[in-house]
Amino acid sequence: MSTIFNGNVVALAGGVGGARLVYGLDRALPAGALQVIVNTGDDFEHWGLHISPDLDTIMYTLADLSPENRGWGIDGDTFHALREARRRGLEDWFQLGDRDLVTHLERTAALSRGASLTEVTQNLCRGLDVDRPVLPMADAPRPTTIVTTEGTQLAFQEWLVRARGVPEVKAVRHGGDGKASPRALDALDKADLIVICPSNPYVSIDPILELEGVRQALEETPVVAVSPIIDGRAVKGPLAAMIPQLSGQAPSAKAVANHYGDLLDGYAVHPGDGFEAPYPVLQTNILIQAREDRVVFARKLLELAEGLE
Amino acid sequence: MSTIFNGNVVALAGGVGGARLVYGLDRALPAGALQVIVNTGDDFEHWGLHISPDLDTIMYTLADLSPENRGWGIDGDTFHALREARRRGLEDWFQLGDRDLVTHLERTAALSRGASLTEVTQNLCRGLDVDRPVLPMADAPRPTTIVTTEGTQLAFQEWLVRARGVPEVKAVRHGGDGKASPRALDALDKADLIVICPSNPYVSIDPILELEGVRQALEETPVVAVSPIIDGRAVKGPLAAMIPQLSGQAPSAKAVANHYGDLLDGYAVHPGDGFEAPYPVLQTNILIQAREDRVVFARKLLELAEGLE
Repeated sequence: MSTIFNGNVVALAGGVGGARLVYGLDRALPAGALQVIVNTGDDFEHWGLHISPDLDTIMYTLADLSPENRGWGIDGDTFHALREARRRGLEDWFQLGDRDLVTHLERTAALSRGASLTEVTQNLCRGLDVDRPVLPMADAPRPTTIVTTEGTQLAFQEWLVRARGVPEVKAVRHGGDGKASPRALDALDKADLIVICPSNPYVSIDPILELEGVRQALEETPVVAVSPIIDGRAVKGPLAAMIPQLSGQAPSAKAVANHYGDLLDGYAVHPGDGFEAPYPVLQTNILIQAREDRVVFARKLLELAEGLE
Repeated sequence: MSTIFNGNVVALAGGVGGARLVYGLDRALPAGALQVIVNTGDDFEHWGLHISPDLDTIMYTLADLSPENRGWGIDGDTFHALREARRRGLEDWFQLGDRDLVTHLERTAALSRGASLTEVTQNLCRGLDVDRPVLPMADAPRPTTIVTTEGTQLAFQEWLVRARGVPEVKAVRHGGDGKASPRALDALDKADLIVICPSNPYVSIDPILELEGVRQALEETPVVAVSPIIDGRAVKGPLAAMIPQLSGQAPSAKAVANHYGDLLDGYAVHPGDGFEAPYPVLQTNILIQAREDRVVFARKLLELAEGLE
């Protein structure tokens, strides 16, 4: 595979869209060039297990275990434990597959033995034969809370999965001490290019950006982003409704670019979503559900980044 | 179902043999008459989960979820999580089924929220529609350690399952503070009959007997026991080899009776295993693998107990 970008690339990623671009970058870049910093604001405890939905989606996608057309879990997984929990009247709103459970069990056990989330993630990746560094944004909990217009406050997964993302969002809060993990800061420090994946800016990327030192690193490094909005609709998830609720703008690729503001040095949008900007806006197919589309697009994005320098 | 014993019955039980007799007693006795005190010396942590093998076997047997011809787990359970763990190079020597996992997950989560093992077991029973009181012998850990003639010390499940019960046993040690659970002591206090199930005396019954106040309760109450040995062989498990190692006697129904000594007021053995004793020794079919045989035998045992008074 030819090298189309020379240097260290760091991707900031949340769930499905992030995972798909990371998959493409992984296959397009040479060994050692890519590190991924992953949102952990969605992490929560369920059945007594520490669950990291975004880390899992990224790991499973890199390990080629993800279903191509579903955003979570392991392709072909079974749900015998979940059905048993339902039968016994236990909580069953979060879909935990039988094979998927092993990830949460290993993570929870290792954390309780005192390992950091960074170390645990490294071990999980090893077990899944994933050799790209997948870095949790923070080792300490940094829970994302959705403040609704009804005045309730819901942990992110409670809002997204249990309440199906229905309650209108008034604000998004980030808990914890605001410290990035040392490995994440080190990766940013050495980055020649930072990629903001097509993830939800409010609940996937902002939790990373607002950690101490991260925004500054982005100001000092070329940054390219990919729109999570195509033709006014989110490819996946609740973003299209959140943009008007949180910014007063119509959902569009441009509204997301406005959100990132001065941080951007380049932007990729779907054909028809282009706009005037003080940086290159690449119009190309950014719908990257299929594996081959992910790699094709990642190469185009890296060419855009190469042209910035 | 006619009542054949009037009064409160407490069964002391370990694994499979205990569970089978408890099943028979459960079906033979009227509602409210039976409580079961279960060995927790085998409890251990695996995959970060608190596993109570004997409690699980008793609960699953009472819930009619146990395989008739296997001593552990849930009939028809699947092992997708276990295979995934094996694939990732994680510990796979203890057979955890996918449905079975729900039990350990619920127990571990509840214990970490501060519930006692007694409360947790009650909730697990409720989820499994088991309405007989199943009482862990102790709320605090009381791990059984096998001291081998090679000088090693192994946690019980490590010895039994991982090392397949091969290393020769020099001694059995019981850890913890030696306190019985309040519910178990209360049950013993109100018992009109105590049944020592056909469980391993060294690793299933002794852990219970050696708790503070338990032996005294047995001295003050009629006690009937059932031999775990038939014609010199253990129905299940490592007992036949342990008897000579720990007592110097050949494995027999009588050797087990000698172990319990003065505590016994009646004893049931298989035809051909009878011996002279200062208490009635009932010779009858004590092989109770099949469900119907369990109930038939439980009735005979209760008749024997009725005759003692």
